[in-house]
Amino acid sequence: MAGKLVGKAIVGQSGGPTCVINQSLVGVIQEAAEHSQITGLLGAKHGVRGIVQEDFVDLTRFDSATLEKVAITPSAALGSTRDKPDEQYCRKIFEVFRKNDVKYFFYAGGNDSAHGADIIDSLARQARYELRVYHIPKTIDNDLLITDHCPGYGSAAKFVACAVMGDDLDNRSLAGVKIDVIMGRHAGFLTAATILARDRQDSSPHLIYVPEVDFDQQQFISDIDSTMGKYGRCVAAVSEGIHDASGEPITTKVAQLQEQDDHGNVQLSGTGALGDYLAGLVRTALGKQLRVRADTFGYLQRSFPGFYSTVDAQEARLVGQMAVRYALEAQSSGSVAIRRLSVDGKYAVETFSTALASVARKTKCLPSQYIAVQGKNILDSYREYVAPLVGQLPQKGYLY
Amino acid sequence: MAGKLVGKAIVGQSGGPTCVINQSLVGVIQEAAEHSQITGLLGAKHGVRGIVQEDFVDLTRFDSATLEKVAITPSAALGSTRDKPDEQYCRKIFEVFRKNDVKYFFYAGGNDSAHGADIIDSLARQARYELRVYHIPKTIDNDLLITDHCPGYGSAAKFVACAVMGDDLDNRSLAGVKIDVIMGRHAGFLTAATILARDRQDSSPHLIYVPEVDFDQQQFISDIDSTMGKYGRCVAAVSEGIHDASGEPITTKVAQLQEQDDHGNVQLSGTGALGDYLAGLVRTALGKQLRVRADTFGYLQRSFPGFYSTVDAQEARLVGQMAVRYALEAQSSGSVAIRRLSVDGKYAVETFSTALASVARKTKCLPSQYIAVQGKNILDSYREYVAPLVGQLPQKGYLY
Repeated sequence: MAGKLVGKAIVGQSGGPTCVINQSLVGVIQEAAEHSQITGLLGAKHGVRGIVQEDFVDLTRFDSATLEKVAITPSAALGSTRDKPDEQYCRKIFEVFRKNDVKYFFYAGGNDSAHGADIIDSLARQARYELRVYHIPKTIDNDLLITDHCPGYGSAAKFVACAVMGDDLDNRSLAGVKIDVIMGRHAGFLTAATILARDRQDSSPHLIYVPEVDFDQQQFISDIDSTMGKYGRCVAAVSEGIHDASGEPITTKVAQLQEQDDHGNVQLSGTGALGDYLAGLVRTALGKQLRVRADTFGYLQRSFPGFYSTVDAQEARLVGQMAVRYALEAQSSGSVAIRRLSVDGKYAVETFSTALASVARKTKCLPSQYIAVQGKNILDSYREYVAPLVGQLPQKGYLY
Repeated sequence: MAGKLVGKAIVGQSGGPTCVINQSLVGVIQEAAEHSQITGLLGAKHGVRGIVQEDFVDLTRFDSATLEKVAITPSAALGSTRDKPDEQYCRKIFEVFRKNDVKYFFYAGGNDSAHGADIIDSLARQARYELRVYHIPKTIDNDLLITDHCPGYGSAAKFVACAVMGDDLDNRSLAGVKIDVIMGRHAGFLTAATILARDRQDSSPHLIYVPEVDFDQQQFISDIDSTMGKYGRCVAAVSEGIHDASGEPITTKVAQLQEQDDHGNVQLSGTGALGDYLAGLVRTALGKQLRVRADTFGYLQRSFPGFYSTVDAQEARLVGQMAVRYALEAQSSGSVAIRRLSVDGKYAVETFSTALASVARKTKCLPSQYIAVQGKNILDSYREYVAPLVGQLPQKGYLY
């Protein structure tokens, strides 16, 4: 190891919150406290915005009882931001770093955050200012490259699997068509996780639509009709990002139709619109008498308290800790990634460091090997990938 | 006690499912097994519909391990129904009872189910056929008369309190306006339970709107505006049943506006419409730049697996057991009700029997003593009522 880099560290959180992003934060805090090279640890409020505004929390002053409570609290305890810093913005950040003798920067977020981290790292290298920038992977969408999976995904996957499990029971009890709209604009990983709800031949979700496959409205109606014929009921899981063959998202179509009316203050382009639109399609095609309902899981799937995956929580803590270790040991900046192992046939992981540019601005989609040929279902092989990330689901009992 | 009534029993479940209605079912099954007067126990599939179709499950053939799994499974394990039996329908039911030597009928449901039970009881008395009909209270709305509270409410209240708690954390992290639409057409008990999410002076929900108070759209916008001024963010909990001063539900207005357009298959009258409409109102009035989101909790609040209140589960089991005991001991039919006690200053309950007619078709509203004068909030005194029914909520930690 070359000469030790001594100085302050800053940590921030970015993008849509998850149930375990605070685990990563606590991982950084705990690991940083172990190393004298890190002479202070500041938490930036609301990510990069807090840096340029020099709005910090001193993270060395919390006891471990408080930190453990923060760790199990969903959403970003430092506050998050939607700011995607361009070069100009990054220059301001870099100036704050220089002014405050900051030598380490840890940023938890998705591929946009990795991109911001990469720009800042480049600026530092250009200025021959020694700085270690480490991106900590976080997203419920599971759409980062290189890493096997993203912390945040397992807990959100657990939530949507349980939600659809509950919907299956509800739908058995009072039959009809139920459409569940699940987060995921470009990647179908989260929607695909609903297959974990299936424990019987007739269990939901009966149909699954992901953004990796073009969505055909007539085919959707026909799929629901045939499921109704088979089971007398139907639960469909739909990614919010479904789009037609031209790539236009169905939500955009819905918004356009809504804008055509002229009622002034009626702007039904909020979260429930896609589900309601699809429910309307089905009702119109298959009959007004049919009981058709749509639920949009919304923010609940990313920030429901007390409902996380234990494996996800542990791994989120780990990537936070490892970000600090890599930053201290490595000669360059990077992003923490997870490699899946099989130890004595059991699921295990190890982390490794990857270049910021390998993760920045890129998006991973659900591999086609998991998608049924007709595109309205996820293959059972996906269970092997997702089940260890989610852990135990609630038990169920049936009388018939 | 007069001559013992010996014969078969039928049990059924009705209306919207809850997370603990199967606890009541298992309470009936376990208690019935203890009494030789009950010579058989049939479960009617899909409530009264299963009775007229003689579609039964023999409930004496399940072991206790299976029953305990059924008990913790949300939704109605026998299947539910929206059928509200009229006199003609009840005559058919009564004929099936007579034909099958049924002397006991247990029906878990809301005030409509109590009404059906009352009609069947009257028919039996008219025919001088000895029959004990017991209604078992069940509703997430908590809107039954006589009883202190309804099994099913505590678990749904726990879900919505946790959901709003998560939303508060999300909203702290990424500020804006968040509107959460919660079940409750006539009674605001469930929406009111969100006050349990408040643990700090600035915690959500900042605003609460229940159907017991007329909803004024201009006032709503002004309330949100002043909350934004105060906290820089706003989370509002809104009952789905809010209505204007004339009593017309806001959802009806939304549906009417939607029907005025002529796009054929666009029928946005599904579940998300009210939330999206309110979000649109706010966005139009307070600026397009404002981050405004709406979530409609939908079915998740009544059937989320593994997320029930322990107290609620115990009481749901108890009312099922007590329905059987009252039916065996009493000389007439009735409904099981809960009385709240304080034993050594601690929450406790006992059950009692009340006439079917005292519960049938009547609705209880949230008492005005719990509603703030301006009508946009619930008073802290409501915590005393609702907290024991919900039990422990997840712990949280903050960094600032």
